[in-house]
Amino acid sequence: MAATNLRVKRVDLVSFCQAVFQKLGLSQGDAHAAADVLVAADARRIPSHGVARLRRYVNGLRDGAMIPDAPTEVLMDSPTSLVIHAHGAMGAPVSVRTMERVIDKAQASGAAFATIRDSNHFGIAGYYAMMAMEADMLGLAMTNTAALGVPTFGRQVMYGTNPIAFAAPAGEERGFVLDMATTVVTRGKIEVYDRLGKPLPSGWAVDKTGRPATDARAILDDMFQRVGGGIMPLGGDGELFSGYKGYGLAIMVDILCAVLCGAPFGPSIADTATSSGRVSHFMGAIRVDTFRDPAEFRQDMDRYLRDLGNCPPAEGAERVYFAGQKEFEAEAESLRLGVPLLSKTYAQINKIGREYEVAPPPVLP
Amino acid sequence: MAATNLRVKRVDLVSFCQAVFQKLGLSQGDAHAAADVLVAADARRIPSHGVARLRRYVNGLRDGAMIPDAPTEVLMDSPTSLVIHAHGAMGAPVSVRTMERVIDKAQASGAAFATIRDSNHFGIAGYYAMMAMEADMLGLAMTNTAALGVPTFGRQVMYGTNPIAFAAPAGEERGFVLDMATTVVTRGKIEVYDRLGKPLPSGWAVDKTGRPATDARAILDDMFQRVGGGIMPLGGDGELFSGYKGYGLAIMVDILCAVLCGAPFGPSIADTATSSGRVSHFMGAIRVDTFRDPAEFRQDMDRYLRDLGNCPPAEGAERVYFAGQKEFEAEAESLRLGVPLLSKTYAQINKIGREYEVAPPPVLP
Repeated sequence: MAATNLRVKRVDLVSFCQAVFQKLGLSQGDAHAAADVLVAADARRIPSHGVARLRRYVNGLRDGAMIPDAPTEVLMDSPTSLVIHAHGAMGAPVSVRTMERVIDKAQASGAAFATIRDSNHFGIAGYYAMMAMEADMLGLAMTNTAALGVPTFGRQVMYGTNPIAFAAPAGEERGFVLDMATTVVTRGKIEVYDRLGKPLPSGWAVDKTGRPATDARAILDDMFQRVGGGIMPLGGDGELFSGYKGYGLAIMVDILCAVLCGAPFGPSIADTATSSGRVSHFMGAIRVDTFRDPAEFRQDMDRYLRDLGNCPPAEGAERVYFAGQKEFEAEAESLRLGVPLLSKTYAQINKIGREYEVAPPPVLP
Repeated sequence: MAATNLRVKRVDLVSFCQAVFQKLGLSQGDAHAAADVLVAADARRIPSHGVARLRRYVNGLRDGAMIPDAPTEVLMDSPTSLVIHAHGAMGAPVSVRTMERVIDKAQASGAAFATIRDSNHFGIAGYYAMMAMEADMLGLAMTNTAALGVPTFGRQVMYGTNPIAFAAPAGEERGFVLDMATTVVTRGKIEVYDRLGKPLPSGWAVDKTGRPATDARAILDDMFQRVGGGIMPLGGDGELFSGYKGYGLAIMVDILCAVLCGAPFGPSIADTATSSGRVSHFMGAIRVDTFRDPAEFRQDMDRYLRDLGNCPPAEGAERVYFAGQKEFEAEAESLRLGVPLLSKTYAQINKIGREYEVAPPPVLP
C-alpha cells in the first residue's frame, strides 16, 4: 500500500477541495469548512472519510441531494439546546457552525447540546468532538446513517452504522478521542473484503435468513436492495458476544440525532446510488471547569493515557494505544511529510479538478 | 432453573432489605433507597445485581468498606453540574439523592450532570437513568468498577466493566432503557462458566500472556491477584471484531466518572475479598422539551420501538427486542406474580435475616 502512496501539503489539499466546493455554489466559509473536515480525515489516516469521498460530495451537490445555499433554520433555541433544520445542506459546514454555537452556549451555561435535522454526511464525527476539546470541554458528536444494521435476532436492516465520537482534553498528550461506528464494522470494510474476494469473518453480517453471511458481494447487494440481511452491531450476532449492546448503542444514537428533533430515523434513511441519504446529527459540549480545575483534569488525563500506553502488550503485539492516539500520530506525520493519498485517489481528484477547472494540489517530492 | 424459583411480594422484599440496612446503621430514607434499587434488579430479572448481592453489602457495611452515615459533601455546584464526595457511603442512596438533584437542576437549566466520588457499588445503572425518564428527560448513568478489563493488544487489567445506562421515555411503550457493561461480559458470566466447568468462548478473556483464555477458574484467580490476564472489551480481543471500540467506551466512562472529579481511576480500583472497591459514578439528565414537544417525542419513540419489535426474526429466533423491553416485561410479571428468587438466594437472605433479627419476606403460594 505504502508504495502507491504520494503526499501533498495539507493546505494545498484543503485549498483544492475548497475551490471545488465554491465552484459548486458553496460560500467561501462553508467551502473551507467542508474542505477542512474532509482533509482532516486523510491527515489522520482515516481515508474512508477523506478526499476519496469527494466524488460523492460533488455528485450530491450537482444532483441536488445536497443544497449548497440551503437556509439554516433554528427550530429551538434555549441556553442548553439548539435544534437546527439544515434543509439539505452539506453536513460539514452546518455541523461546524452548529458546534461553534454549542461551544458558545456551553461557555455561558456550562453544557449545551444540538441536533441538526435534514443534513447530509458530515465526515468524521471526531472533528466536531475535538472542537469542544480544544475549548477545554468534553465534546460529543453522533450521526445517524442509512440503515445497514440488523438488530440482534433480526434479519432486516433497521438502523445505521451510527457513530459516536467523544473527546476529552489532556495536557502533554493531545487528548482522548473516541470515534467509532456502533456496528461491528462499516460498509467500507465489507467492500474491501468484496474487492479482495475474501469470505467475511462470521459475526460481521447476516444474510437474508438472518444466518451468518460470508459472501461480501451478496450482502452488499441485499442491503442496498433491502431484501434482508445486513451488518451486525458491535458485539456480533446473537448474544454470545453481547451484540445487543452495540444494537442498543446504535438506537441510542438514532434517538439523540433524530427522534429528539422529529427527523426521519431507522429504516427510513437510505443512500442513493450516487450519494448519501439525508441524515441527522447530535452534538454536545460540557465545560470541564464546572466539575474541576481544567489544569488538574489535564494532568490526570496525561497520567491515565500514559498508564494505558504502558500496559504490557500481549505476546506478539507491539504496543497498547488509547483512542485517538494513532490518529494524532498520523496527523503529526502528515504535518511533517504531507498528507498521504493513494495514487488512485489522487487521480480521482485530478479528474474532478479538470471538470471544475481547479488546479490539483502539487505532489510533494 | 424455573423449578428452583420461588416468588415473594416486591414490597415485602423491599421492607426486608430496608430493615436489614437500618440495623446496619442506615437512616430510614437511605435504607429504603438502597433496598428499592436492589429489589428493582430482581424484579427486572437481573439477579446478578439483586438480593443475591445482599451479603456483600452487609459485609461492606459491617467491615467499614461502606459507611452507613457518611457525610455527603458538595465539592462543586453550578446550574448544570454537581460534584459529590460520598466519603465511602453506600452507592445506591447517595446516587438516588444525587439523581434527584440532577433532575431538579435539569428542570431549571435544561440539562445537568453529576459525578459522585468515593462511593460504592450502586446496583443497576439503569435505575438512575430511568428516574430521569420518568421526568420526561433523557437519563444517563455510568459507574467505574474494579479493574477487570484488558485493553486491545494488552495483557493486564487497566479498567473496569464500566457500565453505561441510557433511558428515553416513550408513550404506550414503557421506554428505551439501555444498561450495558462495556466489557464483552462481566465477571459474573465467567463465574457461571467456572461453576459449570465449561471452557470460555474465545474472545471473552485473555490469559497472562495476552492470548485468548478458556480456563475460567485460572482467569478469575489471575485477575484478582493482578498477575495478568482479564476480560476483553465489547468487541472481543484484537481488532477483527473492533474490540478497541468497547475499550474506548470503557475509558470514556472512567473519564466521566473519575477523572472529571479527581477520583481514583483505572487499575487503582480493586475489590476486596468480601466487598466491592470504592468507585465513582456519573449521571445526567436532559429535558426533552428543550428540543421538542415531549408528547410528539413519545409518539415517535413508540413508533420506533414497535418497528424494531416488528423486525422479521432470523430463522430459528422468535422475536426481536429493544433495549429494556425484556426487563419491563419481567417487571410487569413480578408485579402480577411476585419477584422471582432462586431458593438458594432465598436461603441466603433468610440467614442474613436471622443474623440481624429481621423476619424474612413470606414466600407466595
